[in-house]
Amino acid sequence: MLSYTITKKCPHSRARAGVFNTRHGTVNTPVFMPVGTLGTVKALSPEDLMTCGAQILLGNTYHLYLRPGCEVIDRFSGLHRFMGWERPILTDSGGFQIFSLAKLTAVDDAGATFQSHIDGSRHLLSPERSADIQACLDSDIMMCLDQCIPYPADKTAASDALDRTIQWANRCRNHWLNRHGGKNNLFGIVQGGMYPDLRRRSVEELLQVDFPGYAVGGLSVGEPKDLMFEMADVSLQALPEQKPRYVMGVGTPGDIVELVALGADMFDCVLPTRNARNGQFFTRTGTLNICNAKYRLDRHPLDEQCNCYTCRNFSRAYLRHLYMAKELLAYRLNTLHNVYYYLDLARQIREAILEERFSEFRTGFYRQYGQRKAP
Amino acid sequence: MLSYTITKKCPHSRARAGVFNTRHGTVNTPVFMPVGTLGTVKALSPEDLMTCGAQILLGNTYHLYLRPGCEVIDRFSGLHRFMGWERPILTDSGGFQIFSLAKLTAVDDAGATFQSHIDGSRHLLSPERSADIQACLDSDIMMCLDQCIPYPADKTAASDALDRTIQWANRCRNHWLNRHGGKNNLFGIVQGGMYPDLRRRSVEELLQVDFPGYAVGGLSVGEPKDLMFEMADVSLQALPEQKPRYVMGVGTPGDIVELVALGADMFDCVLPTRNARNGQFFTRTGTLNICNAKYRLDRHPLDEQCNCYTCRNFSRAYLRHLYMAKELLAYRLNTLHNVYYYLDLARQIREAILEERFSEFRTGFYRQYGQRKAP
Repeated sequence: MLSYTITKKCPHSRARAGVFNTRHGTVNTPVFMPVGTLGTVKALSPEDLMTCGAQILLGNTYHLYLRPGCEVIDRFSGLHRFMGWERPILTDSGGFQIFSLAKLTAVDDAGATFQSHIDGSRHLLSPERSADIQACLDSDIMMCLDQCIPYPADKTAASDALDRTIQWANRCRNHWLNRHGGKNNLFGIVQGGMYPDLRRRSVEELLQVDFPGYAVGGLSVGEPKDLMFEMADVSLQALPEQKPRYVMGVGTPGDIVELVALGADMFDCVLPTRNARNGQFFTRTGTLNICNAKYRLDRHPLDEQCNCYTCRNFSRAYLRHLYMAKELLAYRLNTLHNVYYYLDLARQIREAILEERFSEFRTGFYRQYGQRKAP
Repeated sequence: MLSYTITKKCPHSRARAGVFNTRHGTVNTPVFMPVGTLGTVKALSPEDLMTCGAQILLGNTYHLYLRPGCEVIDRFSGLHRFMGWERPILTDSGGFQIFSLAKLTAVDDAGATFQSHIDGSRHLLSPERSADIQACLDSDIMMCLDQCIPYPADKTAASDALDRTIQWANRCRNHWLNRHGGKNNLFGIVQGGMYPDLRRRSVEELLQVDFPGYAVGGLSVGEPKDLMFEMADVSLQALPEQKPRYVMGVGTPGDIVELVALGADMFDCVLPTRNARNGQFFTRTGTLNICNAKYRLDRHPLDEQCNCYTCRNFSRAYLRHLYMAKELLAYRLNTLHNVYYYLDLARQIREAILEERFSEFRTGFYRQYGQRKAP
C-alpha cells in the first residue's frame, strides 16, 4: 500500500512537497507524469525519459487494451517490461477515452459499451474489467472507472454520473481486493461536473470507500479557466491532507503552478508532447512557435538557460529547418525539450516549496512567463 | 589534401583496409556512410550516430541547397555546426537527384536546369555552382557534378554523358582550386553506363584531371546484379591503388562484402534507413519484416548477438507493436538497428582484412545471411 509523506508545507498556500513509494521506486511530489499513450511517450525512448528526469509515466488503458492487447502485455508480465521502463507507471481507467474518442453505444450500471476507434469492434468496459486490464498492465497506480460527462452538463446529469462513479468505485475496489489481492494501488476519482456541492458530495462518498490516493477528474473539458480552478479548489480542499492528490489532464505550465498552490501533487497532460509535434515549444518566457520565419537564421538555442539535449546542442534555425522539412528528428528533439520543461518546472516548484520560497517562485514564474496573474 | 594509407591488403582478393584523414577526423576503411539527406540521418540524432559508431556521414547537396538553403547554412559556417555533427561529412554533387527527383528541363554543357520537386522553382546547377554549394556546406569530401543516365542507355548516350562528365570534372576541379583554394577534398566520378570500354576510358580521362579520390557512379540504377558487379569490377580495377575508391549508392549487405572484395573502400546507401521506416530489419541471418504476425508475442530481441540500443532493450513484440501503431519511436529504434548493422558490418569486414581472414569472413557471411554465393 502506497504511503505518502509530506516533507514540507508552504506557509502561504496549500502547496506541499511530499514523497511516496511504489514497487518500482520512489516519486517526489509535486510531479508531472508524461503521457505514454501506447506504451511509449510519443517520439521518446525510455532512455530519453530517464535523461529528462521522468519519475513516473502515465499509460492509457483504453489504448493499450485495443493495441497491443492484454495477451501481448501479459507475456511480459506487465507494461514495464514490455516498454522497457523500470520506474513507476500510473494507468487511467479507460473511461475518459471511451467518452471522448470511441463511439459510445451505451452506458448503464454494468459499464460502458463502446466501439473501437480503430476497427469499430464492440467492447464492454465495466469497473471490474478496467481493474483486470490495469492489473495485467501491472501499473503502480490504477484508477477506478468513472463516468465522464461533457461540458456543459445539467445538474441532474452531473449528479447521476457522480452516483454511478461512486457505485463503480465501490465495485472497482472490491474487485481489486478480491480478485487481485489489492496489489499495487487503486485511486478514486472525484467527479461532480461544475457544481461545488456535487464535488463536495463526491469527495465525501469516495472517502467512505477509502483509497490510498484521490484524483480530481472532469476538468479541462472545455470550461472557462476560472471555473476549472474553482472546481479544483473545492475538490482539493475537501480531500484529506494525508493522501496524494492528482489533478487529471491539466494543464498549461501556469495551471500547474496554481494547482500546486491549491494543494495538488500529481499532474499529467498531453500539452508538452502534442504541442511539440505541432512545433510549439514551452520556454520560461512563454511559448514559441518554431515555424515563425524570424527563426530562420537564428543561431541561439530555444532557451539559453535550459539544460535539455535539444537546447544544449541545437539552434532555433536547425529546429525550424527540421520541423519545416517534417524530419522525424524534429518530433523527438521538440518533445524532448517540452517534456524536460514540464519535468523541470515540477522540480523547481518542489525545490521552492522545500526552501520555503514558493510564493516568490510563483510571482517570478508569472513575471517571466508573461501570462495573466494567478487567480 | 586527403592522404590515404593502405594498412593491410587481403592476399586472396583485392580487399584492403586503410585510413584517411580529414579536417574533422580520421576515417577507417572499408567504411559505410549513413545518408543524412536534409542535415539529419532520418530519425537519428548526432548522439545516436556516435553511439552506432558512424565515422562519416553523407549529405545531399540538392536537398540542402533547396532546404534550408546556403544562406542558412552559411550562418553556421557549414553543415557540421548546423546539424551538430563534428566528424567528417561527404556531400554528393546534386547530380543524381536532379536526374532522378527534380523535373529536369535541360542539360547542356553549361549545366543542368531543373525545377525543384518542392515548389517547382527553376534552378541551374553547373559544375561551378555545385562546387560553390559544397564549399558552403564545408564538406570534408566534395563530389564533382556528373551527368547521370537512365538504365538502359545506348552507347552513344553513355559516351556523350561520359564526355560531359569529364568536361565538368575539369571545370569543377579548376573552380575548386581557383575559387575555393582547393579546401577540403574533391573526388572525381567514374561513369560510362554499362559499357566496360567506356568505364575504362572514364577512369583514364579522370586520372588525367587528377583527384585525391575516385567514386564509381551510375550503378544500382535498375541493372541486373551481375552487370552491376561487372561494371564495378572494371571501374575499380582501373582505378589507382593509392587512392580511396567510393562506390556510390550501393547496396545490400552482400553487395558491400563483394564490392570490398573487388577493392572498394567507401559506401553509402539508403537501404538501412529507408527499409527501417518500412519495417524491414537487417540481421546477420537475413532480413526480417516486423509486420509479420509471428512476432506478435515474441519476447526475443531482433538479433540476440547485436549490441545496438534497440536489440539490448526491446523485444520483437514491442517493436512490432510500435510499428503497427505507427508510433514515432518505431522509426528511431528501427533505424538505429539498421544503421548499427551496416556500420558493424563494415567494422567486421575491416577487422577480418586486418586479421587476414577476409575470405573466411566472406564465406561465413553468406552461410549465415543465406543469400546467393559470391559472383
